[in-house]
Amino acid sequence: MWNAVAKNLIRTKVHQDYSHTLLLVQKGRSIFTKPPSSRNCWQHTAGAVQPFNMSTSIQKVEALDVNNFVRIHWEDGSKSLYPAVWLRDNCQCPDCFLRSAKARKLLLEDLDVNIGVKEVTLTDRQKVYITWPDKHTSEFEAEWLKKRCFSEQARAEMQEELFLPECKYWGSDLQLPNMSFEEVLQSDESACKWLSTLKKVGIVLLTGAATRQGELVKLGKRIGFLRLTFYGPTWQVEDKMDANNVAYTSGKLSFHTDYPVLQHPPGIQFLHCIKQAATGGESEVVDGFHVSNKLKEQNPQAFQILSSTLVDFTDVGIDYCDFAMQSKQRIIDVDYRGQVVRINYNNATRDTIFDISAEKVQPFYAALKEFVDLLNSPEHKFTYKMKPGQ
Amino acid sequence: MWNAVAKNLIRTKVHQDYSHTLLLVQKGRSIFTKPPSSRNCWQHTAGAVQPFNMSTSIQKVEALDVNNFVRIHWEDGSKSLYPAVWLRDNCQCPDCFLRSAKARKLLLEDLDVNIGVKEVTLTDRQKVYITWPDKHTSEFEAEWLKKRCFSEQARAEMQEELFLPECKYWGSDLQLPNMSFEEVLQSDESACKWLSTLKKVGIVLLTGAATRQGELVKLGKRIGFLRLTFYGPTWQVEDKMDANNVAYTSGKLSFHTDYPVLQHPPGIQFLHCIKQAATGGESEVVDGFHVSNKLKEQNPQAFQILSSTLVDFTDVGIDYCDFAMQSKQRIIDVDYRGQVVRINYNNATRDTIFDISAEKVQPFYAALKEFVDLLNSPEHKFTYKMKPGQ
Repeated sequence: MWNAVAKNLIRTKVHQDYSHTLLLVQKGRSIFTKPPSSRNCWQHTAGAVQPFNMSTSIQKVEALDVNNFVRIHWEDGSKSLYPAVWLRDNCQCPDCFLRSAKARKLLLEDLDVNIGVKEVTLTDRQKVYITWPDKHTSEFEAEWLKKRCFSEQARAEMQEELFLPECKYWGSDLQLPNMSFEEVLQSDESACKWLSTLKKVGIVLLTGAATRQGELVKLGKRIGFLRLTFYGPTWQVEDKMDANNVAYTSGKLSFHTDYPVLQHPPGIQFLHCIKQAATGGESEVVDGFHVSNKLKEQNPQAFQILSSTLVDFTDVGIDYCDFAMQSKQRIIDVDYRGQVVRINYNNATRDTIFDISAEKVQPFYAALKEFVDLLNSPEHKFTYKMKPGQ
Repeated sequence: MWNAVAKNLIRTKVHQDYSHTLLLVQKGRSIFTKPPSSRNCWQHTAGAVQPFNMSTSIQKVEALDVNNFVRIHWEDGSKSLYPAVWLRDNCQCPDCFLRSAKARKLLLEDLDVNIGVKEVTLTDRQKVYITWPDKHTSEFEAEWLKKRCFSEQARAEMQEELFLPECKYWGSDLQLPNMSFEEVLQSDESACKWLSTLKKVGIVLLTGAATRQGELVKLGKRIGFLRLTFYGPTWQVEDKMDANNVAYTSGKLSFHTDYPVLQHPPGIQFLHCIKQAATGGESEVVDGFHVSNKLKEQNPQAFQILSSTLVDFTDVGIDYCDFAMQSKQRIIDVDYRGQVVRINYNNATRDTIFDISAEKVQPFYAALKEFVDLLNSPEHKFTYKMKPGQ
């Protein structure tokens, strides 16, 4: 998706299902601290990917009766196998495929999942024609087929193109990527670089924005639209009377991700410094994925507890609208393969209600403390002070 | 969360992280078909819950040195155990808890996870005072403690109150819940009933809305705000030239969920019939959770394939903004306990790119066909025809 965004920037604005904006005014001695909440490494394709350089000219095409495959012999001597049912399902004719929507019209109800081909022929070494048992015909371009080859290497290359899975983990040695706010707004190449770096590293510093509200909205519109929340489309972080959030006080914040109380917490946040404090006002960031991996190495039991215990989060108040939110999240959220996909941790909104048995409570706190200690370790956290316009 | 919404309706509007609206105009012989995409049964608390009727008066309170627990003896003879670290973590004093935000101020960094109590006393059988080794003191109300008892029964009751986990599965015998649109707008009791029924059954028919655009926005604002998408905040389903979605043609749609191409597909959708076709225009709905369970019973292997295979989805076009979306979803999405939490299926936006090895392709199609056949079975699907204003 990220690469699709990057590529489409060449044309015009493209939606990303990204998130909130946040206007940041740091006051007094407050320290704003924020780990990157989510870099969607769930799209990771394991292993190194070699350049995929299969010829697009076809030497020969044949139907294999065994298991209903079509085999393509490419000019360079390599071969690809395509299941007949997949070819029929992806027929590109106007009856089966709606070109204006680039979407499938053929219903699964009308697909014979045991289908074989009746005849397969090749034209100009570039086009494969298939006649199906019911006389329906399909035509596939060599280039289109090549991109969809089912070999491990070809699939890995395609996934890399679609999801930019590369992640760079970092600690206190972070070389904070730095770009010009105006260039990102004006140049598609810069915008593309900004997004792909954000995907890879999880944080990018943009400089040279005006020191007034509204700059983040411009940035959001540059690549899509902002996600509305119960704190509104954007908000100001400043010391407030009767604060409805601990971020609106001058007290120290510890490392946290925003909105674990939402069923779908934000993936990216924008912060904009309009006014900076003379003293204090440092920002601390930490790579939650990197630290989770460290925890897994150093204390597998703590990792196991934090990646399996559902923690109650709550947020109640009045802002853009009245709200009373409640969720259950794992602090280290892993996918079905055990890979870390998100950190959900905000000590302020962690509920007083805790839905685990009494004897598991102390071990949970001990595990969380291990994790928080690692987050705070000088080796892992990166500290900087935003300037107005960053 | 759902109950929190319901309860807070008594006060005023409350945000739900719900989703898109959709204005539906059915034309020609098109059949709109939509299974409920998600009823968040991940919050299920297993087992039947008995009424929790512990007395709120305390007979005795004692500190147990073993494992640092505080034991409360209630007036009715029952007992509750509270871990000391949890009590310290949830101290309600102004230094530890920000009352205006109902949020924790105490940082985990400042919490001793091996803490024990120095002294615990009881006042008026209603208040527990704890003195900690560093002289800090905490005060807890009996009622507050009672609600947070760590017994299985008390926790189950609290979770039920927070998440309304009850689900009603249905087939063609669905008694479609029916309520007045105006009553939901005007009466908090009706709005509460609407939301809790929607949570339980997954579908509610509201009648008596005006036959003009804008009614859904009213309904959205009644309980929070609408989620913006790349098709805009609301949209019209009608036969369009150069349709950018198969829903904008008069062709038959098969059962689907909307937007599996999003990282976080919508949980709820609103449909509003403004104009109905003289012939055709039937809506078909099916309970995806119910059918998934049936599939698991009847064909565990097909269930296993659909709940473990990551399927590529794609959506490219121009609407509210240009978009080029790409995702990987499991058609039957299960949580880490194997419980079905969401159905992600839209045959139109299922990508031609398929990231599995060639030999797994045909078994995948066979499994999907089994699932689709069950969705379409007369025993499972429910058919009705919306009238203008519904």
